[in-house]
Amino acid sequence: MGDMSSATHTPEIDSLYRIAVGLEYDGSAYNGWQMQPHAPSIQASLAEAASVVAAEPIAVIGAGRTDTGVHATMQVAHFDTRARRDPESWRRGINSNLPADINVHWARAVPDKFHARFTAVSRAYRYLILNRVSGSALDRKHAWWVREALDVVSMQEAATHLLGKHDFNAFRAASCQSNSPVRTIYELSLRQDASCITLDVRGDAFLHHMIRNIMGTLVKVGAGNASPDWVAELLAMRDRKLSGVTAPPHGLYFVDVIYPKEFGLPTSAANVSPLTGDLLF
Amino acid sequence: MGDMSSATHTPEIDSLYRIAVGLEYDGSAYNGWQMQPHAPSIQASLAEAASVVAAEPIAVIGAGRTDTGVHATMQVAHFDTRARRDPESWRRGINSNLPADINVHWARAVPDKFHARFTAVSRAYRYLILNRVSGSALDRKHAWWVREALDVVSMQEAATHLLGKHDFNAFRAASCQSNSPVRTIYELSLRQDASCITLDVRGDAFLHHMIRNIMGTLVKVGAGNASPDWVAELLAMRDRKLSGVTAPPHGLYFVDVIYPKEFGLPTSAANVSPLTGDLLF
Repeated sequence: MGDMSSATHTPEIDSLYRIAVGLEYDGSAYNGWQMQPHAPSIQASLAEAASVVAAEPIAVIGAGRTDTGVHATMQVAHFDTRARRDPESWRRGINSNLPADINVHWARAVPDKFHARFTAVSRAYRYLILNRVSGSALDRKHAWWVREALDVVSMQEAATHLLGKHDFNAFRAASCQSNSPVRTIYELSLRQDASCITLDVRGDAFLHHMIRNIMGTLVKVGAGNASPDWVAELLAMRDRKLSGVTAPPHGLYFVDVIYPKEFGLPTSAANVSPLTGDLLF
Repeated sequence: MGDMSSATHTPEIDSLYRIAVGLEYDGSAYNGWQMQPHAPSIQASLAEAASVVAAEPIAVIGAGRTDTGVHATMQVAHFDTRARRDPESWRRGINSNLPADINVHWARAVPDKFHARFTAVSRAYRYLILNRVSGSALDRKHAWWVREALDVVSMQEAATHLLGKHDFNAFRAASCQSNSPVRTIYELSLRQDASCITLDVRGDAFLHHMIRNIMGTLVKVGAGNASPDWVAELLAMRDRKLSGVTAPPHGLYFVDVIYPKEFGLPTSAANVSPLTGDLLF
């Protein structure tokens, strides 16, 4: 007190550290990833939990926004903090302050140039359809129940048109705020296993509702209400009003984000669905 | 009115018909199958929904009781009614009066000698373990999360001791009301697929907590805290206090009941998990 030298603080302690986390969530109870004034969000829950651990206010940035009811097996987020904790302390501390429907799988210290959104190289999503006459009590919030028998072969044929770099204007939401409708889809596969139809998509990034609009369009083809080539026509026409319905959010999962290897983040190989036993990508 | 002939009713209309239904449920929100005075049960929900459709009070009898939090992909139940509806009307009518976490897959008219519990030839259960360091937000109510790495080969070796007809007293709950502790296990398999360990068991019938006690015991072996032969010793000792912990209910699924072919009930081949895509037995 009164000694000016007390103002000389240790730079190490006041420096900001950037922490990245990989997390899973059940989106059923949330109004999506994005923080909102009067509705529960994953982003707000994560920020609040991290703030308790850090004992200072923390803001988090995610790799991708997910809509109300959309799930994630691997979302990545980062935040800056003055608090120093080892990665396992961050993981455990945050988890003990999160509700059970959000779970942090890992935490890592990352350099300042890492950014959960802007340094992401690609993102992967999965969409699950339950295609049978009878619905499912157990998976009512985790797959889209489609009663009409779908022809997966024609859906697969339709899907091939979407691979590569395209103007996806026909598949974006009216509310989409992205400057450009051009996106690149690197991988897209559709497979059927008994009554389960799974769409796996990896791309550089996705427009708002893009995957749900793709899924709705593929279902229209699978139900025989459009030909597989219709998807190529839609891409060329670039008119959202012409495409299929928007598939419901609860069948959609954000399953992976890839960053440049230099950041050394865990691969999603550690991220396995306990029910499918599958490696998610 | 006043005409005694009006008392001469048509036997067809007043006869009791027996209806069997196959149903799926998410047990998370229920205090088990069994009706209770002040707690929600699957049995009460089903009876109430069927009563609305029949426009008369209906009581239902199930193939097997499931505990609080235990799920079913295929439970079978029957009820008697004077109401005449075709099977699809029963299915749709009951479903439209059930909450979304219970779903009737089929309804069939069955002869009076059919009894959901007493004519069942065998029952099958599945138990899911998520074996990884990090828990799961999405499957928190649908698999038992075990952190310690489990050795599935030793668990498989231990499980072989349980096949066949045995006195399963070591694996029954203290509260078990069954007269005999002798049961026959026809099939038992344990497999690992990435971080998911799945136990499939088919037997004539099961004692209270029997599968959860078996699973808890196998996990003790898998964690290296007991040898596979310990299971054979447990069976011989017939003392519940010696065996492992009771595995939690939320990893357990009632997946199939088999009846004599003469009743012509649907096989569980129609009952496919949308998330695994597997035929459940």
